[in-house]
Amino acid sequence: MSTEAVAQTPKAPKANPPKEGGKSKKSKKSDQFLLKTPKGTKDWADKDMIIREGIFSSLTQLFKKHGGVTIDTPVFELREILTGKYGEDSKLIYNLEDQGGELTSLRYDLTVPFARFVACNSISSIKRYHIAKVYRRDQPAMTKGRMREFYQCDFDIAGNYDTMVPDSEVLNILCDGLTNLGINDFKIKLNHRKILDGIFQACGVKEEDVRKISSAVDKLDKSPWEVVKKEMVVEKGQPEEVADKIGEFVKLNGSIREVLEQLKSSEALSTNESAQKGIEEMAILADYVDAFEINKFISFDLSLARGLDYYTGLIYEAVTAASAPPKNASELKEKATKDAKDAKKDDEDASEYVGVGSIAAGGRYDNLVGMFSNGKSIPCVGISFGVERLFSIIKARVAKQLDAISSTQTQVYIMAFGGGEGWNGFLKERMSVTNQLWKAGINSEFLYKNKANIRKQFDAAEKSGARVAVILGKEEFPKGEVRIKTLGQGNDSDEGELVKTDDLIQAVQQKLADLDKDGLDQITRLIKAI
Amino acid sequence: MSTEAVAQTPKAPKANPPKEGGKSKKSKKSDQFLLKTPKGTKDWADKDMIIREGIFSSLTQLFKKHGGVTIDTPVFELREILTGKYGEDSKLIYNLEDQGGELTSLRYDLTVPFARFVACNSISSIKRYHIAKVYRRDQPAMTKGRMREFYQCDFDIAGNYDTMVPDSEVLNILCDGLTNLGINDFKIKLNHRKILDGIFQACGVKEEDVRKISSAVDKLDKSPWEVVKKEMVVEKGQPEEVADKIGEFVKLNGSIREVLEQLKSSEALSTNESAQKGIEEMAILADYVDAFEINKFISFDLSLARGLDYYTGLIYEAVTAASAPPKNASELKEKATKDAKDAKKDDEDASEYVGVGSIAAGGRYDNLVGMFSNGKSIPCVGISFGVERLFSIIKARVAKQLDAISSTQTQVYIMAFGGGEGWNGFLKERMSVTNQLWKAGINSEFLYKNKANIRKQFDAAEKSGARVAVILGKEEFPKGEVRIKTLGQGNDSDEGELVKTDDLIQAVQQKLADLDKDGLDQITRLIKAI
Repeated sequence: MSTEAVAQTPKAPKANPPKEGGKSKKSKKSDQFLLKTPKGTKDWADKDMIIREGIFSSLTQLFKKHGGVTIDTPVFELREILTGKYGEDSKLIYNLEDQGGELTSLRYDLTVPFARFVACNSISSIKRYHIAKVYRRDQPAMTKGRMREFYQCDFDIAGNYDTMVPDSEVLNILCDGLTNLGINDFKIKLNHRKILDGIFQACGVKEEDVRKISSAVDKLDKSPWEVVKKEMVVEKGQPEEVADKIGEFVKLNGSIREVLEQLKSSEALSTNESAQKGIEEMAILADYVDAFEINKFISFDLSLARGLDYYTGLIYEAVTAASAPPKNASELKEKATKDAKDAKKDDEDASEYVGVGSIAAGGRYDNLVGMFSNGKSIPCVGISFGVERLFSIIKARVAKQLDAISSTQTQVYIMAFGGGEGWNGFLKERMSVTNQLWKAGINSEFLYKNKANIRKQFDAAEKSGARVAVILGKEEFPKGEVRIKTLGQGNDSDEGELVKTDDLIQAVQQKLADLDKDGLDQITRLIKAI
Repeated sequence: MSTEAVAQTPKAPKANPPKEGGKSKKSKKSDQFLLKTPKGTKDWADKDMIIREGIFSSLTQLFKKHGGVTIDTPVFELREILTGKYGEDSKLIYNLEDQGGELTSLRYDLTVPFARFVACNSISSIKRYHIAKVYRRDQPAMTKGRMREFYQCDFDIAGNYDTMVPDSEVLNILCDGLTNLGINDFKIKLNHRKILDGIFQACGVKEEDVRKISSAVDKLDKSPWEVVKKEMVVEKGQPEEVADKIGEFVKLNGSIREVLEQLKSSEALSTNESAQKGIEEMAILADYVDAFEINKFISFDLSLARGLDYYTGLIYEAVTAASAPPKNASELKEKATKDAKDAKKDDEDASEYVGVGSIAAGGRYDNLVGMFSNGKSIPCVGISFGVERLFSIIKARVAKQLDAISSTQTQVYIMAFGGGEGWNGFLKERMSVTNQLWKAGINSEFLYKNKANIRKQFDAAEKSGARVAVILGKEEFPKGEVRIKTLGQGNDSDEGELVKTDDLIQAVQQKLADLDKDGLDQITRLIKAI
């Protein structure tokens, strides 16, 4: 405990500082304390925020395209709401201190609060999206993008509908969500809890052992079969032949129809009700996935189990080579380049994706709402995008363009030129002119100094990213004239043009429109491109 | 404690339910628990979200106009960071449970995390905005908009600049922020900590009593002078003549120049260094406020003290009659109408605003960053908009328009018409057509049923807010034709038009453009109008 309390937050290997508070300073009050953010959390700022807002905006637009509405729930819930929903991971829940009153905990995901929301408000159907932070007291590994506070972008469909119809739309959203962000080299691993449970039953796993064997299978993306088998036999007490039978099934993967053929030919499963139900549903899904033309992204993979207890049907996660935690930024860049080249390779080859983290995941959970509403069940299916990993991939891709843009969206910088006897710096005049530009909706700044020298004003203008300077000259301004000058490279020798103060707004608007036409205003376009 | 645990969250008096989890249900597991959000918190959904996002979008645009960049800090901070920053209110801080590791607490405001961020990253100047939730273990009064979890919208300027220049820009932002949201009947109460401290000194308050006398004065917006005087004399041990002298000062209010005249004529203050410094700064501010043309909104009010410890200079808060907590929605509506009429009344009459809550507040805090960085001070000034109160005012104003719009932004609903022998409901065909529309960027939905009857599809389309239906007819679609029909009132008898399937996208885009031209697509405009 005490060693952790003084440990410094490790720095993430990023070129642009993500502002992790890793600095140690003394407080004025002389009792020493660390000036940093809590372990596993970080500040977001600067161009990182531009990228993240670009991701949110892209996903929000997609969710709305599918009829989604957004909700916002409290960051903490009554502790009882969260209890018993996350299996082994419940130990990662952050509790608020008991300061009198209700016992509460920070939300672990957005799914349980959504189910609570649906039950609370007796909603029978909704398509909702929710972009917000969730909290897990995990051992943070910031270099791998595993944080204690991180964002999730969730889209869920609740309601009684025909089999696999909303499920296939959610898969469609998953594909569009990633391709809209410029990520094309991904694979969606897909499985069905009913088939998985049927396999376990058919292989001789007892009903009470099914969940723990499922959680062993879930480790197959990180560990080889031998390790998982050992866990089943040694730790979880299954006979070796049971484990071997399971091993035959969980190595299967391929297109939905390919794997379905193999499952249908299995004698062991032919009499298992759960497996047959799942097989039937997967056959329906195969058709819908064709109708949405997303078949090429999908790999039916019987080794996918997913940890959470609440899934009841289809489960899935999207993986990509680029989502592997990079050791450093340059390696990530190399990988991104390589992946772009590889993107056109055989889509069915899922093997290269094994062992890398998922960038989005989800599934069907038909009983969760019922746990909050006297068993009145509302079936749900959803997807959660992992913002931190998407962010890392995209940041590596747009790193170069980012250098060229400013974090601010300032368009115009208002300056005063003058000096000598009686020169007062035109501060009030600059304020008044800036105010006119603001009223006209133009993003404008000026230097907060009474008398500012020319160099300092140009430096501040450059830092602001402004493309146009409005200059109040000592001689010109009293005559009712101001100078408008284009800023930026190649315009140093531009003297600008004198306009009447009364015509200023129109002249500035014209200038900004011309610059935009010339393709000089790159910020908006880059943000859209993210 | 136990009574609090079972108390139901009181319902706010709103026409559109703000989804407060006030419902009591039994869990399946038979141990009874309340299905609700924690005390003092609520869910946001539906049209409330549209309004709130409208407010955020309006303020964000304004902040960017002034060169602001945004940051995001963790929702909890190391406890030491928050300790000793909030005076009496420190007892309201939410602690996270000590589960091993660092001691942390939920942020109480966005100002202290901002100062920590500035110090952590050794920033010398920044204009940042931050829109996020903050947490206070206050006694919630939801009908008055006092919550335990609520949003703040903050804009702050950090950096060494000339006296009152950034301060006046922040006041300008305060004015524009409110008027952009359609709120015009507000008053900014303004005071200066140096003047206030000078007054207390000049009246004979001892140095160590200044802060507690200041916090007594802070209650003048809720209590009459007699009550505050009693607190000073009885509870805080000041001689009665000291209290009386203070009473003469704190009743002063008016335009900056009017009040300055009175302060300058005070013999008691003439030798007080702190007061003279404050008077000097206020005289400078008077000029800048003129340059920004916001004088009419401002009332220099010596009774304003502000509770927080960290302010060092100018302090202010915006109040409006409409920000008084309404007893019910219709009363609020009446008030809003009345206020609109009164808006043109004498601007100097601040008395009618006494006793109502503030909708925005802020001030200068020059020493807070220094507390985190070995005393290396970065002066700051900022403003915080109170989203919950702005929300209540705006919701009452746009209530009528809200009825007419849908929460979703769906444009097109895809349906199938058919029946009889061999009719399969065209589900896959609807999926495929919808997918084409999605690819073209058109917000589209279809019913998640294999066979859907016509009535149900129209009902779902109406609920979705779609303006156009694309209909796949049993006879027409196999011939390569689809029907496009305008939805909504007055279009029931419209038969629609048949188009070739290949021309569908173009025809739908044309139809949507025509409808928008006709002014039928009100959603976007209403959102913008908020």
